[in-house]
Parts: sequence; structure tokens; C-alpha cells
Amino acid sequence: MEFDLVVIGSGPGGYVSAIRASQLGMKVAIVEKDALGGICLNWGCIPTKALLKSGELYEKMSHLDAFGLSAKDVSFDFAAVIARSRKVSAQLNAGVTFLMKKHKIEVILGTARLEKSVPAPKVVVALAGGGSRTLQAKNVLVATGARARTLPDIGLVPDGERIWSYREALTPKACPATVLVIGSGAIGIEFASFYRALGADVTVIEAMGRILPAEDEEVSAAAQKAFEGRGLKFRIAASVKGLTKTKTGISLALDLGGKAETLTADVAIMAVGIVGNTENMGLEALGVKVEKTHIIVNDHGATGVPGLYAIGDVAGPPWLAHKASHEGTHCVEHLAGQGGAALKAPIPGCTYSDPQIASVGMTEVQAKAKGLKVRVGRFPFKGNGKAIASGETDGFIKTLFDAETGALVGAHLIGAEVTEMVQGFALAMTLEATEAEIHATVFPHPTMSEAMHESALDAFDRVLHM
Amino acid sequence: MEFDLVVIGSGPGGYVSAIRASQLGMKVAIVEKDALGGICLNWGCIPTKALLKSGELYEKMSHLDAFGLSAKDVSFDFAAVIARSRKVSAQLNAGVTFLMKKHKIEVILGTARLEKSVPAPKVVVALAGGGSRTLQAKNVLVATGARARTLPDIGLVPDGERIWSYREALTPKACPATVLVIGSGAIGIEFASFYRALGADVTVIEAMGRILPAEDEEVSAAAQKAFEGRGLKFRIAASVKGLTKTKTGISLALDLGGKAETLTADVAIMAVGIVGNTENMGLEALGVKVEKTHIIVNDHGATGVPGLYAIGDVAGPPWLAHKASHEGTHCVEHLAGQGGAALKAPIPGCTYSDPQIASVGMTEVQAKAKGLKVRVGRFPFKGNGKAIASGETDGFIKTLFDAETGALVGAHLIGAEVTEMVQGFALAMTLEATEAEIHATVFPHPTMSEAMHESALDAFDRVLHM
Repeated sequence: MEFDLVVIGSGPGGYVSAIRASQLGMKVAIVEKDALGGICLNWGCIPTKALLKSGELYEKMSHLDAFGLSAKDVSFDFAAVIARSRKVSAQLNAGVTFLMKKHKIEVILGTARLEKSVPAPKVVVALAGGGSRTLQAKNVLVATGARARTLPDIGLVPDGERIWSYREALTPKACPATVLVIGSGAIGIEFASFYRALGADVTVIEAMGRILPAEDEEVSAAAQKAFEGRGLKFRIAASVKGLTKTKTGISLALDLGGKAETLTADVAIMAVGIVGNTENMGLEALGVKVEKTHIIVNDHGATGVPGLYAIGDVAGPPWLAHKASHEGTHCVEHLAGQGGAALKAPIPGCTYSDPQIASVGMTEVQAKAKGLKVRVGRFPFKGNGKAIASGETDGFIKTLFDAETGALVGAHLIGAEVTEMVQGFALAMTLEATEAEIHATVFPHPTMSEAMHESALDAFDRVLHM
Repeated sequence: MEFDLVVIGSGPGGYVSAIRASQLGMKVAIVEKDALGGICLNWGCIPTKALLKSGELYEKMSHLDAFGLSAKDVSFDFAAVIARSRKVSAQLNAGVTFLMKKHKIEVILGTARLEKSVPAPKVVVALAGGGSRTLQAKNVLVATGARARTLPDIGLVPDGERIWSYREALTPKACPATVLVIGSGAIGIEFASFYRALGADVTVIEAMGRILPAEDEEVSAAAQKAFEGRGLKFRIAASVKGLTKTKTGISLALDLGGKAETLTADVAIMAVGIVGNTENMGLEALGVKVEKTHIIVNDHGATGVPGLYAIGDVAGPPWLAHKASHEGTHCVEHLAGQGGAALKAPIPGCTYSDPQIASVGMTEVQAKAKGLKVRVGRFPFKGNGKAIASGETDGFIKTLFDAETGALVGAHLIGAEVTEMVQGFALAMTLEATEAEIHATVFPHPTMSEAMHESALDAFDRVLHM
């Protein structure tokens, strides 16, 4: 057997699986049809964070007087902002190349197709350089990820010019003056936050009844208020009837509960969801079960076809790189006969807007729908000393505890740096912490993380600084 | 009995104890001789964080081109920077006033003295407005805190002009051009970081063999290197022979292992430690045991004198507000007959310099001195995607695990925002987490907190991105 494991797709889920397999003594190949690191490193998580950092700093410079500082002629070089973001992606892409070499993982550039075989399907790669190569491994891991959903019926298809998916939104030649963002999930909100930071007139269109519909309702409301404070505009419960190109930009027809509205802008950014990359790789012929563009897997990532596993975005939501890495690690350890961590774990989610948003576990509505009696705690950053000293008093932390067992079942954060804080709640939930243990933990003063403690105290009527 | 509890001192340890006691149904008074909130809110943790925020932002503006941004005439208004810091303290001071009212805690401004009585010593208050008032309570809690150590023999005494303690360093009239900081603990390093950020020529003098001597040795070394990169200068293993005032500033005679050196500067900032406020309150007559300026207490904060308890700085190191609040909460819950959290808990420590430093648990040297076999993990931020995207690749996270049990016994962080991350390790240690549980936790991508996970993976030869 040429390989113990062939991984198809080199996003974080794919390359982390390959590294872990190599650590466990397997001979591994990884097949990638585009750039090592996948969407996340090249067109997603990473380059957007680079843009957002520039945007944040630029926006902060319009409030310098609040910190006793001043500057003149504050400006940005849009090409330089974009170039920095590309450079960051290129650096991480090179990093993955290095890691593959270090772990003796063979990188095969090309497009993979699966064919029936034992002990696992054969992987036939149409090589990027021409020709093909057939790989036989003991196991095959599909980590092909996902791509932006398009809606051709209403004109929601990237055209490389005025209708952008994340790819075009990451590399425009000039900063648009007016932007319509269609979809208010994490991706839509991050682009809206970035272009607004650079001064664009940005309107976000959301079909559901609130922005960031996956987040807790109180977070959605606070986020919209904070974003509106920064000049972002919203159309909520708005269905897109059609997107058309005009001479100078785009025109968007909306239906707002029976009321028609037409919005125009230089460009539209599509962020209406994700579809799994399941096509043209022979899954059907193998009998792999695909539902709603996602491969159905069991608790170890097995597809049911001997030797064929799937993890990450292509195996279903939440579409998050760390969920993919976790599933990949679990799957590979399972293949190596190790127990390891459970496939299902509390998966935090982050939106790197200004303010930031982070959460883990159930929302209040989800908890109640499950029949749980919950105790709810809240603490606003305006009651937190570090937040006041930093001029970052927007937002709050909300925690949910099972009223019967005291177990932490959800945490919802909005404010500065909450994406770096939420790991504490993820640890607590993984460790099945109860309120007593969180109360007993000493949070350092003065930090914004004290609001985590206060929120947990508040859920049990013990809040200190409110 | 007039009160159930009289708290002497209104720093975080004091006022948090008062609030918790009130929540538990006690009738409480709090005595303060200066400003509500104590040193922490008025002259310590909080106003320094406000200054550091201005300094950080100002320094970041000299690297704008790295983010594709530019500005001209970047400057600071020193008086405005200081005024902002004072305003932040005033706001928090008003916040404590509000909390005392809300919880029906009587605030008595004046200087307290204890006199023998039962069931607890009487508290005789020389009122700030004149006259005196005697309080009899079931229990008395001493939370008088600590103050800057002076060394009169070698001239280390604040003079309000050129030799500064934290008070003077927080409210100078102009920004000094040259500064000597004597002592490289958290307080010294924070002032050094702030004045350096505003462009001052700053030299830090440390008597021990490394800066930040309470931190792990690797952190001390990395911190010194990073600070030197920002232009800070250091004299290590340097003993101060004498500090004298000159016509224009100060002159400091040093002994560097036999070699004499004289440094001059506009001002010197003293940060050579802390002494507990135990004097002139009648502790001796009551038979309270005081050692090295600290009151000796048992595992519930009891002094041994019936009805007399002590918590926080005055009860010994570490001199940290959150340690004081934790002890106060424990003590008050104990008085109320509740079990509650143990007095001894993992106490994180933070230094808000640039880069930031945070730690919890044992250093590697401490662990080995205790006879522990440890597994050590390290992960540098230069291997972290979010750090690269943010331009914050300085620093690392080091973790220590008991090689036999797998328990996390120490974590040492240096880098951007690590003060907001360390709570995850504090939670893990309080929950007695082992490496398996930390490995099983899903840290969100892309965050700098992923370096926490990687460090724990590295300790067990499973690091992914290195």
C-alpha cells in the first residue's frame, strides 16, 4: 500500500489531519487543487483578519482625541491594505508547505476523483501539471470544504466586477464608495465592518428577522445598535427579489414584508451561506450519502463506504476551521486506534467585527426549546474597569446555566477582544464546569475577562459590580 | 449590635467583601481614610491602564505604514492623557459610591483604630470631617492594603518633584525626557512601558539577575528583548547605592557587580516593592501577629483575635486586587456559615506592558524546586495565524504539566492581549484540568488563544503548527 492515508483538501481540517496522522506514524499524502491552506488561509479567515486590523486601526484614528492624541491627514492606501492581506495569506500558505515537508507528507497538486476499491476508494488525481496519478491508501479523508452559495435565479452570482463573493471582496482594485452586503452572518458582517471602517456607505440585507441570526437574540440586537452607531445601515426581514447591473454599479430589488424598495450601490457582496464541495468527485457512484450539499458521517467521520471518511465543512455545519481541525484530529486518532477526544465538542464561533462577537453552546432560545430551565446572567462592559480605562465599554457577556445541574450550557459575548476570551468558556464547557467552579475561579484584575466572572455571578444573583 | 461587619479599607478587597456580606444579609459599614476604591481604582491598576492605552495607541501610530495607513503630525497632549486617566479613576470611584448605596453599606470616611472588645474589636474612627465615632460589629475585616516601599537610607523617598512613587508618576505636569525606573516588577515595567511609549529615554534598574523576577525565566528573557526592541534600557543585577538630586534632575549611583556606574535623568520612579498598611491601628495591643509588614491569617482570613479578619495586600502577597477580592469573598462567606470556594486558589498575575505578560501557577524553576517532573510546552505567536494577520507576532505561551498526573501546573504568556487569555488557564487549573481535557477543547480559529492549545499539545509532542 502506497499510503496509510490520503487527505483530499488542504484547508485547516485537511492539513491538520495530515499532520496528526503523520505524528501517529502514518504515511500520508494530501491532494489540493488550488492553494495549500484552502479557503481559510487564502480566501477566508486569515486575509479578512488582516484587512479588519487595518480597518480597525484606521477607524480608531478618528477618535484619537478621546485618548489625548492627535494626527493630521489620516489616510489609507487601499492597494497597500490589500497587499498586506495577500502577503499574510502567502506567508501562511508557505507555512503549510513547510509543515507538510517537515512531517514528510506528500503534497499532490491536482483534482481528486474517487473510484471503488478496497480497503478504501482509489484516489485518481488529475494533476495540475497535466497527466494523472492514482493513489491507493488504507483510508481516504475527504476535507474538500465548501464554497459561497450563489442564487442564479435572482442574479446572485459573482461577476468579478460588481457582484463579489469573498474572493473579489478580498482583492478589489479600489475601495468602493457604496456597498450592499447580502447576508448578515459572520462573513457578511466582517466585510461590512471592514468597508465601513474605511468610510464606505454600507447597507447589510438580511432575510431573517435579525442580523447574525445564529447568535443569541440579545447579541443580535446589541450588535445592530453598535454597528448603526458606526454608520452601518440594515434592511432586516428583507427578501432579495433581483440583483441587476446598471451602468455604474448594481441595483437591488427588495421586498420588506410587502413593501418594495430598490437600493443601488457600486458593488454587492454575497454572503448568503455556504455549500459543501461534494460534486464531481465520484461520491454518488460510491454510494456516499449526501444531504443538503453535505456528506453524512457517523461519530468518527465515517461515510459508511469502507475506508472513506469526511470532516469539516463538507461534512456539515458549523462551517468553522476549528471544527474541521477538531473533527480531523478525532478521525485520524480513531483510525490509529486511539480513544482521544469525542467528535462532538463545544464549538465556539467568532465574528471579528467591531465590536467583536463570540459564543459557545446554546442560545437562550435554543436552551428553552430543548426544555431546559436556565438561569441567565448578564454583565455589561460599561461596568468593567478595564473596559472603561480602554474606552471599550460597548457590549456585554451573557451566560446560561442549567438551573437544575448548574452546568454552563451557553455563553454569548459582544465587545472588544471577546474572540480571545471565549476559549475560557469553551474550556469550562469541555470540562463540564458548574457555576460553583466558575465562581471559585480567580479572574485577573483589571481585565475585560472579569465580565465573564460577573456574568456567571449574575446568573446566581451574586453580581458584584452592577 | 450596630453592624454585622465593619470593613476597614475600600480597595477592591474591601468593597467586594462589603457587597458580598450585604448580599448575604449582613448589615455592613466600610471605613475609608482616603478615596473609595483604594489604591487600585485611584492610584494603581485602573489609572495606569488608561495611561497605557493612550501610550500603546500613540506608539502604534509610528508603525502605520505596516497596516497600509498613514498620518502626519502624530502627537500627544500630555495633560489630556493624564486628565483622561484621572477621569477614568473618578468614574470608577463614583461607581463604588453607587454600589455602596445600592447595597445599603454605610460609608464612613475617616481613619480607623481597633480597641479590644467582644465579640470583635471596636473600631474607633477619627472622622475625616472631625470628631470620632465608635463602631461595634460582630466581625471586623481589615483590608487596609499596602503602599509603596521606600528606602530612606539610599534616598529612595518620593519628594513630589523628581523622585516619584506611583502617585506622582500618575500625575506629572509634563512628560519627562529621561526616566530611571527603580525596580522591574509589574509596577515598574508598566510605568517604563508607558513613558517609553511617549518617547522618553527610560532605563530600568533591577537588583535581581533578571527583569520581572516573579515570572518564568524564559518570559523575563523574552520580555527584556522585546522591551529593548522598543528602546527601553536595562541595568540588571544592579544595586542602588544612592539617589541624589541635582540642579536639573537626579543622579543615581549603581554597583553592577563591583563596577560603579552613575546614571542621571529628569526623574526616578520608585517601584521597589510594597509594604502592608499595618501601623497605627492598634494591631499590636490586640496581639495580632504581623510579620514582614503583613498580618498573619489562617485559611479563612482569621487573625486569631476573636472577630478580627484580614484579607488582601495587608495579609500578604501576591499583592493583587483579584487575590484580595477572592479572599474577601471567601472570608465573608465563611462568616455567613457557607462553604464556598477555598481561600487558596490559582491567582493569575498580569503586567500590562507592550508586549503584555500574564501567568498563573508555578514557574518551571518553582515546579522543579518542588520536585515535580514536568512536561514543558511552548508555542510562539509567530506560528499563529491571527498574530501574523494582526502584526502581533512577538511572544509565546509556555505551559507546564505534571508529567505523572498530566495536571496543568503553570502557564506563562507574553504577547498581545495575553492578559485577556490567561483566565482560560486559571479556569483550567481551578477545574484541575489535565492535558487530555485541554487537548480536547476546541479553541476558535483564527485567534491568538490557539497558541494556548498548541502549547499544551507541544508539551506532549503533538504540536501542529511548528
